[in-house]
Amino acid sequence: MPYTPVWLMRQAGRYLPEYRAMRERFGFLELCRNPEAAAEVTLQPVDRLGVDAAILFADILLIVEPLDVGLEFARGEGPLIRRPLRDEAQIRRLAPIDVDAAVRFVFETARRVKRALAGRAPLIGFAGAPFTVASYLVEGGPSRDYLHVKRLMYEEPEAWHHLMEILATATARYLNGQIAAGADAVQIFDSWVGVLAADDYRTFVQPHTHALIRALTPGAPVIHFGTGTAALLPLMRAAGGDVIALDWRVDLDTAWASLGHDVAVQGNLDPAVLLAKPPYIRQRVKDILDRAANRPGHIFNLGHGVLPGTPVEHVRALVDIVHDLSDRRVR
Amino acid sequence: MPYTPVWLMRQAGRYLPEYRAMRERFGFLELCRNPEAAAEVTLQPVDRLGVDAAILFADILLIVEPLDVGLEFARGEGPLIRRPLRDEAQIRRLAPIDVDAAVRFVFETARRVKRALAGRAPLIGFAGAPFTVASYLVEGGPSRDYLHVKRLMYEEPEAWHHLMEILATATARYLNGQIAAGADAVQIFDSWVGVLAADDYRTFVQPHTHALIRALTPGAPVIHFGTGTAALLPLMRAAGGDVIALDWRVDLDTAWASLGHDVAVQGNLDPAVLLAKPPYIRQRVKDILDRAANRPGHIFNLGHGVLPGTPVEHVRALVDIVHDLSDRRVR
Repeated sequence: MPYTPVWLMRQAGRYLPEYRAMRERFGFLELCRNPEAAAEVTLQPVDRLGVDAAILFADILLIVEPLDVGLEFARGEGPLIRRPLRDEAQIRRLAPIDVDAAVRFVFETARRVKRALAGRAPLIGFAGAPFTVASYLVEGGPSRDYLHVKRLMYEEPEAWHHLMEILATATARYLNGQIAAGADAVQIFDSWVGVLAADDYRTFVQPHTHALIRALTPGAPVIHFGTGTAALLPLMRAAGGDVIALDWRVDLDTAWASLGHDVAVQGNLDPAVLLAKPPYIRQRVKDILDRAANRPGHIFNLGHGVLPGTPVEHVRALVDIVHDLSDRRVR
Repeated sequence: MPYTPVWLMRQAGRYLPEYRAMRERFGFLELCRNPEAAAEVTLQPVDRLGVDAAILFADILLIVEPLDVGLEFARGEGPLIRRPLRDEAQIRRLAPIDVDAAVRFVFETARRVKRALAGRAPLIGFAGAPFTVASYLVEGGPSRDYLHVKRLMYEEPEAWHHLMEILATATARYLNGQIAAGADAVQIFDSWVGVLAADDYRTFVQPHTHALIRALTPGAPVIHFGTGTAALLPLMRAAGGDVIALDWRVDLDTAWASLGHDVAVQGNLDPAVLLAKPPYIRQRVKDILDRAANRPGHIFNLGHGVLPGTPVEHVRALVDIVHDLSDRRVR
């Protein structure tokens, strides 16, 4: 590729009119479970924006449905777990997750997307990291302080580790199924891990993320993402991944130097910058590309998902700006 | 002092039964505005816990009342700004804040506390940093993504800087008034600054925090605090402060080394650890004290405020554990 590749977390989402049109016909879970519709939604941003990869349309919580915790997607509120896991007894009762039964439809979506792409762009699969999925299961939804999670870690560490083992095993199977169905790379979302002290990450998270990544089919690069991770980056790198994805809070050059240039990085524009006009977006993109210094191994991305209110023409402009400013043929 | 000093953000708060008793008699703003009651609440944790400083009971938003933005403290919801500042026209209309008129009662509280302490512990005053106060004014309350703030910074930077100048000027006067009334040190809370990219901090925040700190009466040490600041710490240090306060997300030794040992540090236990039992608390306190290596210039504190549901006997145990483990007389 003659320029820095760019794709965006949540590139298939509410900011796109054609996505909103699909959501008028399908509820969120219904859309995830319909391979034909989910494949269409996966392909929309590739056609509309010219991004350099398709990202499978799915949700990180789909694999927990067999746990019978009452997963729901309330309109405009994000995921809710009606029967959160708060103590050892509940966690001990959990059966291993039958991943193939739970998410067969995701694998079918991947196969359809792969056929439709016919090689014009790679397909990226994804899953939630064990910590972030566990945080939903234990808190019951998004949280500010993650007090139930932390209480469980500190007071019932064996129950915590048991839950993390169940999730790491299921997630490895989930991602390997996506790879078998055609995913060229996979991204692991540890979106909320930045609420933890580094010591908590080392004790309660790192071993499980490490086990997950070691269990993945070789050959598909692994992108390892979190937010608020400035103090966790070296520990995330040690946990694994071919690409460490940075949120916008760190300077890309400093973060990359501290990780080592033998690992690739993805990032790291603040999604809020896409609310500003294209000349300002260009200035901020240039800053990130300058920090990346055209090293191979930089994938341009936002520091988190595209925000729902983002003007679609700004997203389109972003992709063009990245390609234009990083084009090695004109330098 | 023969041991590491310890005080706690929000040490006067809901977790204390005697505070809850006062709140049955007074609304939150009413309590702040009543110097006799506010002084009593300030002194409660000194008597009950044996902490090494009294922290003035007040709120960071008291100084914005003259801006007529509709400040309210809704029960259990935190502060609300009914008429948030969203555009340049609103911000240009703002008159400078008459601090003395707005918060005379805080200065009176400080004088009363100072008399009652009679030297048995120092008094710490505080204020919000310009960014964090501005974030409430612009967002209208706590926020997840701070999109109104960021849009204002990126799209109407002159309005943003004007607002920050008004706040930095008023805050300097507010803190100097507290120092004149007897505060031995002051803490500046930039609680939400960790939502910003380092570049945004440099451009939109650092000059104003720097101007504020330079305008303070010499002699009273300044503690500079934020959360989610792992990537901002060197920039915060450059903005100013005799003590940089760390949240729990960073390892204290690494953070202190990167700041330089010629600045003091405060922190940094995760407040959630106080939900666990004292033996576990002891283990986590020991880890922090080991990282501080008994260097002078470490003040023990939490990484953010005491959580409302914290058992008061755990807070009491924390203070004793810090004093016990850091006692230089028995080593």
